Amino acid sequence: MLKAGVVGATGYTGVELIRLLLAHPEVELARITSRSEAGRPLEVIFPNLRGCGDLRFEAPEPDRLAACDVVFFATPNGTAMQWAPELLEAGTRVIDLAADFRLKDPAVWERWYGMPHACPDLLEEAVYGLPELHRERIRSARLVANPGCYPTAVTLGFLPLLECGAVGAEDLVADAKSGVSGAGRKAQVHTLLAEAGENFQAYAVAGHRHLPEILQTLREVRPGAGLTFVPHLLPMIRGIHATLYAGLREPVPDLQALYEARYAEEPFVDVLPAGAHPQTRSVRGTNLCRIAVHRPQDGDRVVVLAVIDNLVKGAAGQAVHNMNLMFGLDERAGLHAVAVLP
Amino acid sequence: MLKAGVVGATGYTGVELIRLLLAHPEVELARITSRSEAGRPLEVIFPNLRGCGDLRFEAPEPDRLAACDVVFFATPNGTAMQWAPELLEAGTRVIDLAADFRLKDPAVWERWYGMPHACPDLLEEAVYGLPELHRERIRSARLVANPGCYPTAVTLGFLPLLECGAVGAEDLVADAKSGVSGAGRKAQVHTLLAEAGENFQAYAVAGHRHLPEILQTLREVRPGAGLTFVPHLLPMIRGIHATLYAGLREPVPDLQALYEARYAEEPFVDVLPAGAHPQTRSVRGTNLCRIAVHRPQDGDRVVVLAVIDNLVKGAAGQAVHNMNLMFGLDERAGLHAVAVLP
Amino acid sequence: MLKAGVVGATGYTGVELIRLLLAHPEVELARITSRSEAGRPLEVIFPNLRGCGDLRFEAPEPDRLAACDVVFFATPNGTAMQWAPELLEAGTRVIDLAADFRLKDPAVWERWYGMPHACPDLLEEAVYGLPELHRERIRSARLVANPGCYPTAVTLGFLPLLECGAVGAEDLVADAKSGVSGAGRKAQVHTLLAEAGENFQAYAVAGHRHLPEILQTLREVRPGAGLTFVPHLLPMIRGIHATLYAGLREPVPDLQALYEARYAEEPFVDVLPAGAHPQTRSVRGTNLCRIAVHRPQDGDRVVVLAVIDNLVKGAAGQAVHNMNLMFGLDERAGLHAVAVLP
Amino acid sequence: MLKAGVVGATGYTGVELIRLLLAHPEVELARITSRSEAGRPLEVIFPNLRGCGDLRFEAPEPDRLAACDVVFFATPNGTAMQWAPELLEAGTRVIDLAADFRLKDPAVWERWYGMPHACPDLLEEAVYGLPELHRERIRSARLVANPGCYPTAVTLGFLPLLECGAVGAEDLVADAKSGVSGAGRKAQVHTLLAEAGENFQAYAVAGHRHLPEILQTLREVRPGAGLTFVPHLLPMIRGIHATLYAGLREPVPDLQALYEARYAEEPFVDVLPAGAHPQTRSVRGTNLCRIAVHRPQDGDRVVVLAVIDNLVKGAAGQAVHNMNLMFGLDERAGLHAVAVLP
Repeated sequence: MLKAGVVGATGYTGVELIRLLLAHPEVELARITSRSEAGRPLEVIFPNLRGCGDLRFEAPEPDRLAACDVVFFATPNGTAMQWAPELLEAGTRVIDLAADFRLKDPAVWERWYGMPHACPDLLEEAVYGLPELHRERIRSARLVANPGCYPTAVTLGFLPLLECGAVGAEDLVADAKSGVSGAGRKAQVHTLLAEAGENFQAYAVAGHRHLPEILQTLREVRPGAGLTFVPHLLPMIRGIHATLYAGLREPVPDLQALYEARYAEEPFVDVLPAGAHPQTRSVRGTNLCRIAVHRPQDGDRVVVLAVIDNLVKGAAGQAVHNMNLMFGLDERAGLHAVAVLP
Repeated sequence: MLKAGVVGATGYTGVELIRLLLAHPEVELARITSRSEAGRPLEVIFPNLRGCGDLRFEAPEPDRLAACDVVFFATPNGTAMQWAPELLEAGTRVIDLAADFRLKDPAVWERWYGMPHACPDLLEEAVYGLPELHRERIRSARLVANPGCYPTAVTLGFLPLLECGAVGAEDLVADAKSGVSGAGRKAQVHTLLAEAGENFQAYAVAGHRHLPEILQTLREVRPGAGLTFVPHLLPMIRGIHATLYAGLREPVPDLQALYEARYAEEPFVDVLPAGAHPQTRSVRGTNLCRIAVHRPQDGDRVVVLAVIDNLVKGAAGQAVHNMNLMFGLDERAGLHAVAVLP
Repeated sequence: MLKAGVVGATGYTGVELIRLLLAHPEVELARITSRSEAGRPLEVIFPNLRGCGDLRFEAPEPDRLAACDVVFFATPNGTAMQWAPELLEAGTRVIDLAADFRLKDPAVWERWYGMPHACPDLLEEAVYGLPELHRERIRSARLVANPGCYPTAVTLGFLPLLECGAVGAEDLVADAKSGVSGAGRKAQVHTLLAEAGENFQAYAVAGHRHLPEILQTLREVRPGAGLTFVPHLLPMIRGIHATLYAGLREPVPDLQALYEARYAEEPFVDVLPAGAHPQTRSVRGTNLCRIAVHRPQDGDRVVVLAVIDNLVKGAAGQAVHNMNLMFGLDERAGLHAVAVLP
Repeated sequence: MLKAGVVGATGYTGVELIRLLLAHPEVELARITSRSEAGRPLEVIFPNLRGCGDLRFEAPEPDRLAACDVVFFATPNGTAMQWAPELLEAGTRVIDLAADFRLKDPAVWERWYGMPHACPDLLEEAVYGLPELHRERIRSARLVANPGCYPTAVTLGFLPLLECGAVGAEDLVADAKSGVSGAGRKAQVHTLLAEAGENFQAYAVAGHRHLPEILQTLREVRPGAGLTFVPHLLPMIRGIHATLYAGLREPVPDLQALYEARYAEEPFVDVLPAGAHPQTRSVRGTNLCRIAVHRPQDGDRVVVLAVIDNLVKGAAGQAVHNMNLMFGLDERAGLHAVAVLP
C-alpha cells in the first residue's frame, strides 16, 4: 500500500482527492493537513465523508509528510513550491494540483501569478501531468504538475486536430463554461447561490491564467498555435464544457475516425458517436472526458465539444491517474466510478 | 415628493429598497450610503440598476440623512440603534429593516442579539410594522421596526386562527423554508452555490432569532401562545414558504371564510381558493403574501401555507408599505409589480 | 452470481437500479426491459452508463424473466401485480419498487390507487421491505414491497420515538420535502426546470398516496397512530428531507441515546451527533439515512430531521438491500458508495 | 386605447406578453385565446397573474380577433400563417412571435420548418421586427415577424462590426447559451429539472432553425456573411448569452466607440463600459440587450458578449416594442421594468 498525504485538504479539490484515495485499493491515506482546521475531524467540513474512518486534519509537518510515498498539494497557488524541494529531497514524490509547476518559463509564471517563483530550477523537471500526452514521462516523474481544469478539457479536445496538422492552429477559439466549484470553497460574494444562480456570464476575457498553460501545451504539439480563450461561469456546481472552433486548412477524410483512433487506447477519453452532444452530467463524479467532433454543414469549420468533471478529470481524478502511472499501478485503479444520474 | 435615504445600501435588502424607491411615484431617493463603497456608482454593485440614474454610494453623514423625510436602515443588526435617536430628534422618520427595534423587552433582545441595546428607551415607542396588525399605529409612528422575513409569513399565516381563538395556541408548529438571499450578500461559505445548491437542510433548530419576534406578536394576539419554529435553507434565491400546523380545539364552521374575511380589505394578502397550494414564484418580486388554509381529511389539524418574497413583503416592500402609511400615501404606491414567471 | 432482471428500466428508479446492479459484486444483470425502448442500447437513454457493457432494452418476456433469480419492477403502479403471480410460480423472487404490494388492505389500496388489485391474495404474503423493521421476514420473502421514498424517511425518523412509547402517537406531523426526481422521468409540465426551478410549494395536502402507507407502518408499531403529512417539491434533483414533529407525553431521559441505541447495528442509518442538521447532499447517491433528533428549548416538542436520497435509500438502494437480505449476501454488498460533494 | 389580442396564450411567450400588455398604459388586452384552455381563468395557468383582472382564455374566433387593432401570435410555428391573411384583410395588424414570416425565401422556410408555407405571398411584405435595424419599416408595417431569441442577441452583437466592414464576415462564430424557458412550456423530458438541472450541453450543432434566420439578416447588412452557430442549454430559466467571435481584417481605431455610437439612440441596447462582462440576470424581465466588446491581448480577434432575456427582448418585449412603433406610441411604453436582483 502506498502511503499518501494531502496538503490543504479543505477545498473542493481536497475533498474529492480524499474521497478517491479513501476508496483506492492500493493507497493508505495517511495524512490530511490544514492549518486552519487542524485537530478537527474530516466530517465536520465534509459531511459526505462521515463514517469513512477517523481521519483528522493536522497541521502540515515536513517530517510527517516526508514519510509518505506521495504527497498531493491541493493548496492555493504558491504553496507547493515552498514544500516541494524538501519533500523531493526526502524521496517523496509530489503531485501539485495548483499551478506552481505548470508553466515552464518562470517569467511567464511570475507575470500571470503575480509572485516570484520559489524554485524555478524545478520547472524543467516537473512533468505536466496530462497522461494522454505525457504518459511515459509521468511514469518516471518525481514531480507532476497536475493540469488545470480548463486546460484539460481544451487540450484533449484540440489534440487530434493539432497533431494531424489539418487546421489553422494560429487562430483557435475555445469557448469554455465551468460550474462554480471551479472557483473553490472560499468565502466570496460572486459565487454565492444568490449571485451565480439563475445567471450566466463570461469572465476574464482579457486574459485568464489558464491561457498561457493551454498555449504552452498546444505549442508543444504545434508551434505557432494561437488561441482565443473565453471562460464563462455556469449556474451549477460541477462540470466543464469546452466548445472548440478551428478552421480546416486541408481536407480530413474522416474526423470521427481521427478522434476515435487517437483515443482508442485511452482509458479516460470517450469519443462519442458522430452527431452526439456530450452532457456534463454524464461525467459528473468520474474521471472521463467525453468528446464529440462536428463539422456543421460540411463546411471548413470544425466544432469540438468536450466535457469533464472539473474536480475529477480536471483535478483530483487526474492526480490519482498520475499517481497510478508514477507507481506502476493499474491506470484505472480507484477511478471506476460511474456518474450518478439524474 | 418625499426625500428618502437608505443607509447600508449594498446588501440584498438595500438593492431591493433602492429598486422600489427609484420607481415610487411620490419619492425622491436622495441618498444611499455605504462606508465600504463610498464614491462608487450604484451600477458597480448592482448591474440591474445601470441606467436608473446617477446615484452613488456615499459615506453616511448625520446631517445629510437628517435632511431626508425618512431614512431606511438596511444595515446589520446594531447599527440603526446608533443613529435613530439623532435622526428622530431632527424630525426625520426612521424605518429599520434590521432587528434593533423589533423586540419590546431589551433583556430578551440582548440575549438573542448578543449585545447591549443602545437606546432601550425607544423600544416602547417603536411600532412593529406589520400593517395587517398595526396599521393605525404605523400611520402616526416616528420609528418603525420592519418585521423579519420569517415572522411576516408565519404571523400572517397564523393570525386569523389565533384571533378566532379556535386553535390550541400553546402548541403551534411553523416549518419554514427560505431562499438563500435571506442570508444576505455576504462573503461566506455555507451559501455558496456549490454548498447550498442541490442541497436542503434545516438550521438553528435549537433557537433562531426570529422565534422571540414571532412569539411576541402571537402573544399580543393570544397570550400564552407557544411555537416550535424550524427554519430550512432552500436551494434557490428568493422566497419563503411557511407551512403552519395548529390543532383545532373547537369547531370552526368555515376556515376558508374566516381567512377570506380577515384579509378582505388587505391590499397585500391574497387568500387562495380552497384546496390551493401557493407557489413562491407567484409572489417573487412582489409585496404579496399568498395564503391557503387546509384541514386534511377533515381532522383536527389545520395546515396553513403562506408564501412571500423574503426581500419584498419580508423586507423592502413591507418597508415601503410602512412608509406609505406613515406619510399618508396610497398604500399600494410603488408596490404594483406582478411576479415575472417563469 | 445471482441473475437479476429489471422491468421498466427507463425511469429514474430504473437507471439507479441498473447502476447499482452493474457494480454489484454478486449479481449478473441479465435483462432490462422496456416496451417503448426495446432494442435500443442503454446509453441512448442514460448517457452516464455508456461504457458499462452492452445491455440493451428488450420487450418484457415472461419466460426470460422467469429465468432470473430475482426480478425488480421499476414500473408504474399496477404493473408488477400483473406479473408477480407467474414469476413467483416459476420460483423467481420479486421486488416491486412501485406501490402494488405495499398496503395490506386491498380496499385501501384500491381507494388510493384508483384501480382494482390484480392479486389481492398476495398482499398478505408480501413483505414490506423496510430492513430496519422487517429484516427477518425479508430474508425469507418471495415477494418484497419496496417502501416508498417519503415513507422510508418518515418511518425511520419516527420509529424510535414510537417504539419507546413516550410520544403522543395520535397527533404526529411530517413536513416532508422532495427533489423533483421523485416525480419520475415523465414528460410533464409541472416538473420542467422552468416550472419547478426557483420555486417551492406544498402539494397534495388533502391526501397523498404515501399517507396510508406510512400510517400502516406506524400503526404496526403503535396502534392508533395518527399523522398529518405535507409533502413539498424542492427545486433540486435528488434528496428527501423529513422534518418530523411529535409531542412528548412522558419524560425521556436521553433522546440522543435512544436513537443511537435503536440504530446502532443498522448499516444504513446514521444518527448524527446532538445538535446536528443533516444535509440531503451528504447522502446523495448513497443508501444512507442520516437522522438528527432535537428538543428545542427543552420543551415537550421533539423535532426529528431525517434525510435520504429518494432514488437510493428511497428506492433502488433499498431494493438492493432487500435483495442482499433475501439471498443471504452481505447486507452492504454493492452499497458502499460515498456521496460526491460538492 | 389599442385593443389587443393574444392567440396561443398559454406558453411562456404568451404569459410574458399578457403580463406586459396588462401593464401597458395604452393597451386594452381584449382577448386571450387557447383552444385547450378555453373557458379557464388566466390565473389557473399562471398563478403570478392572479389578481390582474378577470381575463379568461377563449377559443380563437376570427371575428372577435378581427375586432382588435393588433393580434399577437404566441403560437407554435405554422399557426399564424393560417390566420394572418384574414386578419390583415379585416384591417387588423399582426405580430407573429413564431417563425412563420421570418424568412423571405419560402423554399428555405419549408426546408427548415418541414411544412409548406400557407401564404408565401405575404413573406415579402412582412417586416422582420428588429427595431434597431428596421425601425422605419416597422412603423408602417401591417405584418411583423418578431425575431427569434438567439437571432436577436446574435444580430445585435454583430451589427456594428458588420456595418463597419472591418471584420471577416464570411467566418463568424456565435457560441450561444439559453435558459430552458426558450424550449417552451411543453410536457417533454429533456427540459425537466431532473434532466436539465446541474447539466450543460450543446445541441443542434449540425443545424438549428435560427441559423438561416440569423444569416438572412447578417447578409442583408454584409452580403457573403457566414456563420458557425452553436446553441447550448443552460441549467437556468431565463436568459441568453451570445459569445461572438470575429476576425479583424483591418484596424478599427476604437471598437468601444464604434459600439457606443451605433447604439447611442437605441432605448433598449446598452453598451457596457470597456472591459465589462454582461450578466444575464442584469436584463431578466426587461427588454434590454446589454453588450460588451473585447479584443483580447489586442489581437485580431474581436469577442462580443451580448445578453438578453429570451422571453422579453427575445420575444414578448420586442413584440411590444414593435407594436409601439406600428401605432406611433412612445417606444418605451410598457417596457420600463428594471431587473429584479438577486
